[in-house]
Amino acid sequence: MLNIAILGLGTVGGGVAEVVEKNQAKIQKILGQEVRVKYILDIREFPGVKNLVNDINVIVNDPEVKVVCETMGGKKPAYEYSRLALEHGISVCTSNKELVDACGCELSEIAARNNCSYLFEASVGGGIPILRTLREACAHEKISRITGILNGTCNYILTKMRSGSDFQAALREAQDNGFAERNPAADVEGHDTARKIAILATLVSGKKFSYEQVHCNGITQITQQDILDAEKNHATIKLLGMFDAEKSQILVSPFFVKSDHALYNVNDVFNGILIHGNMLGDVMFYGKGAGKLPTASAVVSDVIECLKNFGKNIPNGLENLQPAEVSPITTDEKIRSL
Amino acid sequence: MLNIAILGLGTVGGGVAEVVEKNQAKIQKILGQEVRVKYILDIREFPGVKNLVNDINVIVNDPEVKVVCETMGGKKPAYEYSRLALEHGISVCTSNKELVDACGCELSEIAARNNCSYLFEASVGGGIPILRTLREACAHEKISRITGILNGTCNYILTKMRSGSDFQAALREAQDNGFAERNPAADVEGHDTARKIAILATLVSGKKFSYEQVHCNGITQITQQDILDAEKNHATIKLLGMFDAEKSQILVSPFFVKSDHALYNVNDVFNGILIHGNMLGDVMFYGKGAGKLPTASAVVSDVIECLKNFGKNIPNGLENLQPAEVSPITTDEKIRSL
Repeated sequence: MLNIAILGLGTVGGGVAEVVEKNQAKIQKILGQEVRVKYILDIREFPGVKNLVNDINVIVNDPEVKVVCETMGGKKPAYEYSRLALEHGISVCTSNKELVDACGCELSEIAARNNCSYLFEASVGGGIPILRTLREACAHEKISRITGILNGTCNYILTKMRSGSDFQAALREAQDNGFAERNPAADVEGHDTARKIAILATLVSGKKFSYEQVHCNGITQITQQDILDAEKNHATIKLLGMFDAEKSQILVSPFFVKSDHALYNVNDVFNGILIHGNMLGDVMFYGKGAGKLPTASAVVSDVIECLKNFGKNIPNGLENLQPAEVSPITTDEKIRSL
Repeated sequence: MLNIAILGLGTVGGGVAEVVEKNQAKIQKILGQEVRVKYILDIREFPGVKNLVNDINVIVNDPEVKVVCETMGGKKPAYEYSRLALEHGISVCTSNKELVDACGCELSEIAARNNCSYLFEASVGGGIPILRTLREACAHEKISRITGILNGTCNYILTKMRSGSDFQAALREAQDNGFAERNPAADVEGHDTARKIAILATLVSGKKFSYEQVHCNGITQITQQDILDAEKNHATIKLLGMFDAEKSQILVSPFFVKSDHALYNVNDVFNGILIHGNMLGDVMFYGKGAGKLPTASAVVSDVIECLKNFGKNIPNGLENLQPAEVSPITTDEKIRSL
């Protein structure tokens, strides 16, 4: 029996419990043992939920706990809890891009010192296994460019605007369907995409890019007329995060995407991440960028990797990095061209 | 210094030498040591190529050789050479889908017994890191369906036919551009796609599907009129390999693909592989399905994994499998619908 804990019983945390339960047979076949969610930490009450605790010390002081899934989001108390777990030799798997961007390097170094791991596959691209692919299968490639549709909410809104909604109506529809927060600023102003492209740029460059360095414009100024004009030119408008390794430029902006481009058909809440390697050429990864089960599946994939490597640190690419120097973006276009 | 050998100095073999040379600095950073191509085996003469040998025994009896890259293609002598290497504890990384389909299980079991590995990322999807992703990041998913554009030659021909060429003219153009063999039967009759979907089905099901079990129709009967008719219905025609795990059906056939489908924009020599996981939903991987450097990059990615795990077997999913039972496809349609 391998024991794990979940920190935060929100959408993703609940999804982790569900993935572990529903795919237990497959997980057991990989690890040779059952995986059990021994604790769920939340300060809220959830009648009927077993193993609910509200004190992180119960978890980190239980030597049976091998991995915690940090699915709380935000910096506080996620940072303290993650740090505490790692200092106790317990690996942390997270979907929390805000924390990875702000404190990922520090937490990764704490993990390395304590022979455990800090993994964050679910923080970028939801269920798409992009980070492990960059870290392993493509580690020997020189990645010159990453271009990604990284925010499902914005992509859903832009897709809806193609069929006649204006921005506000499309946003309301996204909110009504649970694809956008009541306060949608982090999504529609591009900050969420900026965090994700900063994480991707860091992994492929080996230099620390942070969210604050990203030149960032969101989709709030995009009108339905802009989209109709784009369609007349056999294109559409997508919010892209883009990293150009050669120019050391990193930005988030609405872009015209032509109808023959690999990202053109990435619609609704899907994400698409296009990377260009010097030997591989273009490779794209496409999948659900958000949502309970896809994101939780990515967390579980990290959990399995940590359990397979228990007692060892899995280098994650965030250790011992120098800060990146960024070339400023000097032009200011409402919608850029690829 | 880590020494490897290349068997067969054709397109992919030459590419492996080039990737190792051009990305040596990155490879060295991953492994902490230089990787050197100590031998290249070919029965042909290549003036100016250093380290050329024509006797496999020179390679397998050199204790410095840790990995061989089998990029010969075909069964003979690739099978004997691979077997000999594995029996000497030397890992084999291959792009040879014919051999993987026919003898992959046996070679994988020999590898396991000799504490080395048999890896074959480059045999499916060229540079796309699909096999490792299925084996690792998605190992805990129940994959119910795989739908793939798996042959770059057919996809190139079908793409050209959209802009006015008939089948024969498009085939000639593919041949003139080096995208199709002089004898194109294995590509255009669907056999190459059949081998690849059989490998994918085997990996996700844990049962051995072989090429002979695939219901297979190629693209030789597709006319330009078929494609124009499809376009009128906002669709196009793609040759797809498809595996339905629930029905245990496996086939290769031309399909109508609607313009809003993720595979619609996979054009020219690109491949696209769409998998459906029970938690992940749809995930697609897109990239160059053939070509010297992308395919070689996939071989090198396997080489690095073998070198990182030297002295240990990396399970590849082909060990100890029972043969699959396949439900027959009873309908016979020239072009199927998704």
